[in-house]
Formats: sequence, C-alpha cells, structure tokens
Amino acid sequence: MGKLGTRDINVQEGRESVIIEAVKPEIDGGRFPIKRTAGDKVIVEADIFADGHDVISCALLHRKEGISGWTEVPMVHLGNDRWRGHFKVTEIGRYLYTMRAWVDPFESWRHGLAKKVEADQDVSVDLLVGAELVEATSQRASKLDAKKLRDLANVLRSEKGASERLSLALGEELSEIVAKYPDLGFASTYIKELSVIVDREKARFSSWYEVFPRSCASETGHHGTFKDCEARLAYIAAMGFDVLYLPPIHPISRTNRKGKNNAPLAGAGDSGSPWAIGAAEGGHKAIHPELGTFEDFRHLVSKAQEYGIEIAIDLAFQCTPEHPYVKEHPEWFRWRPDGTVQYAENPPKKYEDIYPLNFETDQWQELWKELKSVVEFWINQDVRIFRVDNPHTKPFPFWEWLIPEVKEDHPEVIFLAEAFTRPKVMYHLAKLGFTQSYTYFAWRNTKWELMQYFTELTQTGVSDFFRANLWTNTPDILTEYLQMGGQPAFMVRLVLAATLGANYGIYGPAFELYENQPRELGSEEYLDSEKYEIKHWDIKRTESLKDFIARVNRIRKENPALQSDWSLSFHGTDNDQLICYSKHTEDLSNTIVVVVNLDPHHTHAGWIELPLSDMGLDPQSPYQVHDLLSDARFLWHGPRNYVELNPHITPAHIFQVRRRVRTERDFDYFM
Amino acid sequence: MGKLGTRDINVQEGRESVIIEAVKPEIDGGRFPIKRTAGDKVIVEADIFADGHDVISCALLHRKEGISGWTEVPMVHLGNDRWRGHFKVTEIGRYLYTMRAWVDPFESWRHGLAKKVEADQDVSVDLLVGAELVEATSQRASKLDAKKLRDLANVLRSEKGASERLSLALGEELSEIVAKYPDLGFASTYIKELSVIVDREKARFSSWYEVFPRSCASETGHHGTFKDCEARLAYIAAMGFDVLYLPPIHPISRTNRKGKNNAPLAGAGDSGSPWAIGAAEGGHKAIHPELGTFEDFRHLVSKAQEYGIEIAIDLAFQCTPEHPYVKEHPEWFRWRPDGTVQYAENPPKKYEDIYPLNFETDQWQELWKELKSVVEFWINQDVRIFRVDNPHTKPFPFWEWLIPEVKEDHPEVIFLAEAFTRPKVMYHLAKLGFTQSYTYFAWRNTKWELMQYFTELTQTGVSDFFRANLWTNTPDILTEYLQMGGQPAFMVRLVLAATLGANYGIYGPAFELYENQPRELGSEEYLDSEKYEIKHWDIKRTESLKDFIARVNRIRKENPALQSDWSLSFHGTDNDQLICYSKHTEDLSNTIVVVVNLDPHHTHAGWIELPLSDMGLDPQSPYQVHDLLSDARFLWHGPRNYVELNPHITPAHIFQVRRRVRTERDFDYFM
Repeated sequence: MGKLGTRDINVQEGRESVIIEAVKPEIDGGRFPIKRTAGDKVIVEADIFADGHDVISCALLHRKEGISGWTEVPMVHLGNDRWRGHFKVTEIGRYLYTMRAWVDPFESWRHGLAKKVEADQDVSVDLLVGAELVEATSQRASKLDAKKLRDLANVLRSEKGASERLSLALGEELSEIVAKYPDLGFASTYIKELSVIVDREKARFSSWYEVFPRSCASETGHHGTFKDCEARLAYIAAMGFDVLYLPPIHPISRTNRKGKNNAPLAGAGDSGSPWAIGAAEGGHKAIHPELGTFEDFRHLVSKAQEYGIEIAIDLAFQCTPEHPYVKEHPEWFRWRPDGTVQYAENPPKKYEDIYPLNFETDQWQELWKELKSVVEFWINQDVRIFRVDNPHTKPFPFWEWLIPEVKEDHPEVIFLAEAFTRPKVMYHLAKLGFTQSYTYFAWRNTKWELMQYFTELTQTGVSDFFRANLWTNTPDILTEYLQMGGQPAFMVRLVLAATLGANYGIYGPAFELYENQPRELGSEEYLDSEKYEIKHWDIKRTESLKDFIARVNRIRKENPALQSDWSLSFHGTDNDQLICYSKHTEDLSNTIVVVVNLDPHHTHAGWIELPLSDMGLDPQSPYQVHDLLSDARFLWHGPRNYVELNPHITPAHIFQVRRRVRTERDFDYFM
Repeated sequence: MGKLGTRDINVQEGRESVIIEAVKPEIDGGRFPIKRTAGDKVIVEADIFADGHDVISCALLHRKEGISGWTEVPMVHLGNDRWRGHFKVTEIGRYLYTMRAWVDPFESWRHGLAKKVEADQDVSVDLLVGAELVEATSQRASKLDAKKLRDLANVLRSEKGASERLSLALGEELSEIVAKYPDLGFASTYIKELSVIVDREKARFSSWYEVFPRSCASETGHHGTFKDCEARLAYIAAMGFDVLYLPPIHPISRTNRKGKNNAPLAGAGDSGSPWAIGAAEGGHKAIHPELGTFEDFRHLVSKAQEYGIEIAIDLAFQCTPEHPYVKEHPEWFRWRPDGTVQYAENPPKKYEDIYPLNFETDQWQELWKELKSVVEFWINQDVRIFRVDNPHTKPFPFWEWLIPEVKEDHPEVIFLAEAFTRPKVMYHLAKLGFTQSYTYFAWRNTKWELMQYFTELTQTGVSDFFRANLWTNTPDILTEYLQMGGQPAFMVRLVLAATLGANYGIYGPAFELYENQPRELGSEEYLDSEKYEIKHWDIKRTESLKDFIARVNRIRKENPALQSDWSLSFHGTDNDQLICYSKHTEDLSNTIVVVVNLDPHHTHAGWIELPLSDMGLDPQSPYQVHDLLSDARFLWHGPRNYVELNPHITPAHIFQVRRRVRTERDFDYFM
C-alpha cells in the first residue's frame, strides 16, 4: 500500500484488530523453550481481545517440529478477556505452539439478533444481513456445505414465517456449519512461535544414587572396580533408585595430586580426586585403569539396565597438567607470562591440580567441537544421563549450543546442572537447556524457608524451565542439619527430598549409613572425604536407613501424585516445627498429604488444615488417610485434624487420602 | 565462521557471555514505549550477570531520537545481580535507551590480586599478568594515556620493590585510566532499544473542567456561545482549573434528533445531543452556528490562555445521517441489504441518530487520512488537547498510527482516552499512545476498592504506560455515591480525585452546584441531562463547592508532591471508613498526608499509622502537620496519631508534613 503520512502500516494491520498478549507459558518473551515430558498436557493461556463489542474466536495452534501444518484446537474464554486451550505432547523432541484469533461476524450477528428478538424488535433487515453473511461463508465452504449454506441463506431471505427463519438463524446447525469456515482474512496470529522441549519421563521423575565406584570393593583396602559396582546394583535397586551417578571415571593425574582431607600434597598411596581428570593414560575419553575396561563399563551399564537403573556419568570439563589436551592443544589453556599454564583459582583458594579450559581462546570453535565429541563418545558407550560439574564456570553460549546439538540426535539425553551459584545464574543455565538442576534444598531447613523456596520453584513460572533435583547430601555437602540432628535428621531430609521433589538424590552409602562427621566444626566437608580417598562402607550393618529409603521410594513409585511437582501446595499447621503439604494427580484420583516434624530432637504435635474441596473431598463426610510409612489408618473429618510425630520413631507421615469412608448405606442389608 | 555441527552460531556469540534480562521499565517486551514528562528521571533496572566469577561493568545508553550516538552512564550493582542506572529526559519527544555490559578483566584481576595479597601469597606472576592487561589497554587508549599506561605496565614488570608495584596495581589511578578504555569486543548489548515518549508537564499534572458551551448563556432561555464561555473563564480560573474541555462543538443533526431526557423524538425546540455530529452546516471541521464563528472560537482559546487555561475539544469519530461524509463517502459506512446505512446499536439499544464509521471498509486508508486531517484542522485552530470519545470502538491499529503521526509534528498534543470498557482494552489503548486515560475511579468508593485500584495504577508497571485522569462525574456518570451522600459526598470525591490523581476533572457546574438527581432510581444519568438540552446554572448561588474546589486546586499547585502519582502510598488506619495515604517529592522536601472520612453521613475517628522513616521523619522527634484545608496545625509524635473527621464540616485533612518542631535548643538564649 501507499504511505499513510510518514509511517508505513501494511494493509493487513489496518483492519486486524484482535490483540493476543500476556501469554503463558512463555519464557523471557519466547527467547527460551518451556519444558515438558512426554504425555503432558500443555495448557496455554493468553489475554485476547478486540476493539468494539464483536464476538471473537481463538484457536491454539501446535505442531511437532519437522511436521508441516498446524493442528488447531479451540480456546475457551475464562472471563476478563483471558482465554485457555491445551494440547498433548506425546513424543520426545521439540513442539511449537502459537495462537490465532479473529472477529467472528456471524456469531456477533447471531448474538445481537438474539437480544433483539428478546426485546421484541423488528429483525427483518437483520435476517437479510445474516443471509449475506451465510452467503459469504458459502464461498469458503466445501462444495457440499456451500450448497447447504446457499440454501439456508435463501431461507433466511425468504417469505417464510418469522419463527421458522429465526429458529434457523439462532439454531446450532447453521452456526456449526458456518464455524467450519471462518474468514481468517483479518485474523491475528500471535507474533511468536513458542517452543516446548519434550523430554522422557525420567526428566520429571527420577531417584538418584551417587556412589564412588572405587569405594565399592567388597573388601577393605582394595580399589573398587566396575565389577564391584555391578555387585552393588542389587543393593541399590532394592532401595528403589533408578539412576546411578558415578563421579568422574577417568585417569587421575599424579601432578599436584591432593592428599587425604584435601591435603596439598598426596601421600604415597593416595588415590587423588576423580575430578582431577587426565593422566598419561588419557583424558575425558579414557577410563581410570584401576576401575576396569570399556567392556567392563558397558557391562555395568547393561547389567544396571536389568535392575531398572541407568548409569549417569560426570561431565567435568577441566584438565590436569597431565591431560593430553595440554600438549595437544596448548591454545585451549591460558598461559601466564612465566610460561606456565594458569591453574584454577578463586582467590585466595588455589586449585593447582586443575587447569581450566580457556573458552576465550581464538580456537573456541575447535574446543567446543571436541567437548561435544566427549559427550558423543559416552553416548556411544550407552550413557544417556550426564551430571554436569560447575556449568556456571563455562560460557552460557556453549551450553546453549551443546545441549540442543546433542539432543538433536539424542533427544533422550538428560543433563543435570550442578550449578551451586547465584539464583539468576542457576535459572539462566536451566533456560539454556539443562534438563534438571541441583537446588538450594540442602540449605532450606525451616518451615518458612521450605515453603517460600518450593512455592517459588513449583508455583511460579520457574517450573516451566527449571526442573529441580533435590539432593539430601553430596560429597561436598554434609549440612549442619545432618551433622547435628542424629538419625531422625536423615529421615526428615529423605522424606522432604523424596516428596517435595519428584526428582531427588542421595550420595551413598554415606547417607543411608548416617555419616555425619565434618572435617572440622563449621565445615560442610565430610571428614575423610571420599573425594580424596578410597573408603569401605559396611552396607550390611543393621544401623542403616536403607529399608526406610526403600519404603519411601516404593511409595513414590506407587503414587503418581509424587511423580511430578506442579500440584505441590502447602497447608496450614499451628506448629512451626510441623510442615504439611500435598500433591495430587490432575484427576484427583491420587492425593498424598505429607506432614513432617522438622525438629529432629523433640516430639511435636499440632493441628493441620486441609483444603478439602480442592482435594475433591466432601467437607461434610468423613474420609480416611492411610499413612504409607507406618501403615496406620486414620478416620478424619473436616479440614482440621490432629497429628503428633515423634522423630525418634518416624518424623513424618506420608498419607494417601482415600476419598470416602463407607457408611451404613454401603452395607448389604441396608435397603 | 564455519558450521559448528548443525546449528550456526556467529563468532561473536561464542565468547559473549554477559546476560541482560528482566529489564524495567519495559512494556510487553519493548513493544510499546514508556511515558514520562520533561524533566523526569528515567530509572532503569536489569538483571545483569555473566558465567564464572569475573567482575562485570554495565552502562545505560540513552539518546533523544534523531540524535546519533549514545550517551553512556554507568549502572550500579544493587545486589543479587540486579543493576540500576538513570538518565534525565529534558525535552518533549521520543528518547531511546538500552544497556551494554562486559566482563572487566582488569578489575577481575585487581580483585583477585587484592585477595591474594591479603592472604600473603606470592603475586609476582600476577603482576606480570597485570602488566599484560595494562599493555593491552594502552592499544585502545588516547596517545597520552597510551604512553602513561605503557609506563605503568613497565613499572608492574620492573624489579622495583613489591610494595611500590602493589600500590600501583591496587591503586585508583591506574584503575581509572584503564576504565576509560574498556575492551568492548565481547560486550553484550541488550537486544532491544526501548523507547520513552516524553510529554509536556500537563500530561502528568492537570485539572480539568468540563462545560457545555451552550449552557453558558448568562440568561435563561438563550443558547450559550463561545463569547458566553469567555465570560465564564474568570469563574473557572478562580476555581483553579487549567484545562477546559468542551463537548463536541460541531453542527448537530436534525434527523432522528433525540429529545429531552433521551426521548426517541425531539420536540420542536429541542437542541439535540452535541455528539450527534453533522448537519447541512458541516461535520467535524465545522462549528455549530449557534455557538459562534471560528474567529469566536480562536478568541476563546486565546482568552483562556490569558487565564492559564487550555481549551480541550472532543474527538467523537461518528456521524449523523446528515453528516457530509455520508454523501461524499458512502463507502465509509456499512450499508444494509435494505439500502439504508447501519446505525449504531448495542442490542437491544439503538442509536438511530448515529452512523458509525466502518473501519473495515476497503477505503480505510482514505478514512484514516481524513480523520487525521480533522485533528490537524483543530490543531490549526490552536487546540492542543483532545478528549477522545469511545476510542475502544475504533480499531487499535488506527490509534497506534494516528497518535504518533500527529505527535511527530506536534509532540505537545495530549489525547485523553474515554474508554470506559474492560480493563485490558483500557490498558491497551493507553499502550497504543493515549496521553491520559479515564479510569474506574467514579465506581471505587470503599477503602479497599480505592487502595486496591490505586495501588494497581501507581505501584505496578501500569503507570509506565497508563496515566490516570480521575473524574468525579461526567455528563454520563452521576454515581450513586453522589446521588445519596449529600454535599459531604461531593467534598469527599473532590478531595479523593484531586489528591489520589495528579490529573483529575469535574463536570461542572453540575458538580460544584451539588446536582444529584438521577433520571430515575438506579440510573447514573442526570435528570434533565445537558446532553439533550440547554441548561442554565446559577453559578452565583452561595450553596456551591466552588471555594472548596479553589482551595484544593491551590493546594495542588503549591505542593509538588501532589503533581505526580508515582509516590502514592497507603497507610494503616484502624477504622475502615478512614482512608489515609501520602505523596512526596523525590527529595522528601514536600510531603502530603491525606486522610478522608469515606462515610458522608457520620463522624468517624481513629488512629492512623505513618511510616516515619520512609517519610524522612525522625521517629524520636515530634513533627508538625499542617492541615491545608482548615489551616489547623497539629503537633504529632510517633507513627500513630488520632484523627476525627465530621463530614458535615470537612470530611478530609490534607496535611503538609513539616519535618521538625523547634525545641529549646533553637531558643536564642539556650546556649
């Protein structure tokens, strides 16, 4: 078109007047995809409105990437110009969605006609206007419908009785045919195509167990092997874990090797830290010889599969002075003016056994490609889950490239970000593509902290991109709560992790064996940490949390409510040491209420208050709650009920809510 | 660069790692400009962070549109990766802003060096690294600074004493020179350039008075003229208003003319509704002959200027059957199958005297141009303020085109949107460019309603695009509160409008003369409404609110705190009929506390609670509050103070807070 004054407006725009905005979910204006798992419903809402008073219609458009042509589903008006629609994502990969909305002249006309009829006004001209609209629709219709529409237009125009013409005009039949052929000439399509990354179910629901393979030997004093790990699988599977995460399994450098308890210099027999990757035997594509061979590794992976366990390995992109890259690619490191390579430091701390890769090198493209080849190398060894060490110390653009690049061929791959850093950096890494993320859970212990943090993680937009994985402990994190709370503290934290988070993990056997000695007071490091030495754990000893863990993991498997985090909701208690929350399935067929006594030392009692209607319970009828931990059953009535938890017995209830209690009316002879 | 696998990433991106996001202010992802007035400070905040632990620097870039080259101001870190900067907009028109951030290797190095020195570590190699950084900086520096930097680099490298080299390395001098020449090679610039529409002060602070010129005759039975309006100016100016808004002044159609009280048919002497625009005498570019001539109109405009009053006219884009457009441009109307033009209707209501323009016409571009020419026509008659009638029944794209188009040549023009429609439509029109907007104020009467609504309008992002103009009444809106509350109700609503809103208006003389008779019970229409007949108001009668209004408007003029809405904050009271709020200037040199008794029938008393520290008051010292309405002064102490308001005297306090009360220490002979 020509110019309209000094600003151009294209022809379409001038008459396109439906606005689509405030879309949810949409991350940072569509800059990043949302995350879902296969089988999920993607619910989309937007503010959609036009000028004037016309009736509008809105459709949600969606498609799997690579498939041409949108599938269209109608959206419904929720009130206050808010509309909602949904679609199901069934396969892993990437889906796209957007919206289209248009003014609907036929429905606007029908709406006005009905009001005029009600007010007993003359509508003879209105019927002629309607006939024109129907006639116009016929030009967009299939041959069959076009004929039908022309006939109906003629009836509207005809001399027939007003009541016959009106019942046609206001009836559903005509409306339904017309609705099949909307005039999309001036329809507004949302300016962005938004995307959804669809992962497999394990991205949403997983139970992780971290173990050092070198500590898996059945006898003290031996270096554990992959074969020893295999022998440990039955034990891990019995506890109910489905991901077994191994810290780095690569050759460990001898240069600047750290000694026990992080001593600056290793003693003669010291085995060093597995995170000091690279030695004469190789780097990230090699296996530490004492652990076994590639064949042994693949055998472990396949044996684990038989137990329903997947092996996850560590991606720790850093090198030791002995790593082959240092010689082969000196340009990937930062050289100091004295001719040495810059080691890792966070002043005044020095990590002289670690050379960080210099991502600012001019050869960054070659570096990126090599690191991608590391991931592919292990994919070829049948690994599909990677725990990524300190991703926040590598460039954001690297992850934004690497993860989709890997997932293009292997959409089933899962990346867990270990970014214990500032909140915005943590969230940004998740947006860039990490499938799951470590959280601050370990440091959230009080009721207020837990409620505040898990409301943020699950009930705000955060969960669209950030999938929390809750760890009770790690080789780096022995929290003060665990150090000081005795065995009840371990139970408390296990229940919280496993029920607040559909994804959770423990570092064992330290956890189930109640290991709680810090290197020194005020430290979160384990005394005699496995990071620097081989340990032997007596997994058969009776003083172990393993049966309790097995019970909790079984409860998770049997209760779909616990297999996602979207429904998490906190409930009132009149005692700040008692935290109460629930999760449920969309159809409310499975509802779990958890109550935990956060004080590992004393018995606490109090009243909890449940929103019965939201939970699908009749506030007038009694209901049964079944504690899946103790197997006790309680008959409750009304929203307020009493609980009492002795941490020295069990500091938690995990109640399954049963909808209804039988009454005399269910008794055979009642009628 | 080449391909990195299947996804291209440009060279820059791979090493650009500072993220800029969550920018405020930014409306709908930068889709719309924010609004400010000349002299305002634009405060910009963003989350800005990089991977790793490096020190980053951030700059806010801004410029007036048309001026090339950014002005750069540093941003400061507020904590939690949130940064803030600001700039001042001094001229009306459009400004642009964005941000740039970069990793600062020199400051990162200096930061690490300081920590190492503190830990007593050897830093000899670090000094060499620093020398390299300084040397590199010298290559970006001015000739003079380059020499200086090379010399300083040599000192860092030299054999001089460690203490001398360290004090140079850690000192401010070197840091300041280096900061002048940042390496912006991998700097991140925010992806969007955001814009600010800067209006003149009246956009932010204005007092409107609406009057029907035809009712301004000094004697009953005469049709008022522009000359009569002139005679009314002194009266209006004495009340303190600075915008005089006239309903449409165009020829009024005779066809289907409405009678008194909206009777379907006019009687012989009935003058019709001024909104029925268009007759044989002309349309939107003509003047109703009985009001006077163009010369009279321009004379009124210039006379008003002498009183400090601007004339605002109505833009009501609709026509009567007699409007010249109907004959000249039949294609701009919607024709019905019976050969008649579609009149306005909102079934079952019919407005047969009004033909809406059909913006869906194929000739919409010509229509748009003609309507723009109407605005220009009145600009040529020295009008700079337009009150726009029902903008929500015209297409959104039309306004988004028209307003900037007009403001390109006349950035001083003000458009007030009369869109009493759904909230999202109302807000959208404001985003599209309207300078001010009518609000739901008239229907917000209780404390909770007022607090909730004005918190939304002033304390959320809304105020960045929506400038509220609070009307106590309009020819269409005589609220039930005014109908039932007697004279105190008028005082309550006047004080609320004039102090909650820096922009407010009344429709007079109906308002100051306490007109409160509805056409019928349950109606918000005035009985014998001026919309359909000429009235004669006895503005000289003693029973009038005019002196009270004059006082309130003088308070507004003398207290800059009341001239903007950004600082509005509500304070606690222990009586739900008492509402308390304050406004202040940025430097706290002017603070106004308002307390209103919302019950027009009964005296109410209670305690109000003020946040003294936020108001710059010492919580330990007494302070004086001066009621600018009654001229009474009170000595208060501490946050909680007692107030009592009898609506039959004055239902409100407008306190000016005086910072400090004199004590014995101020007495001449004290020392």
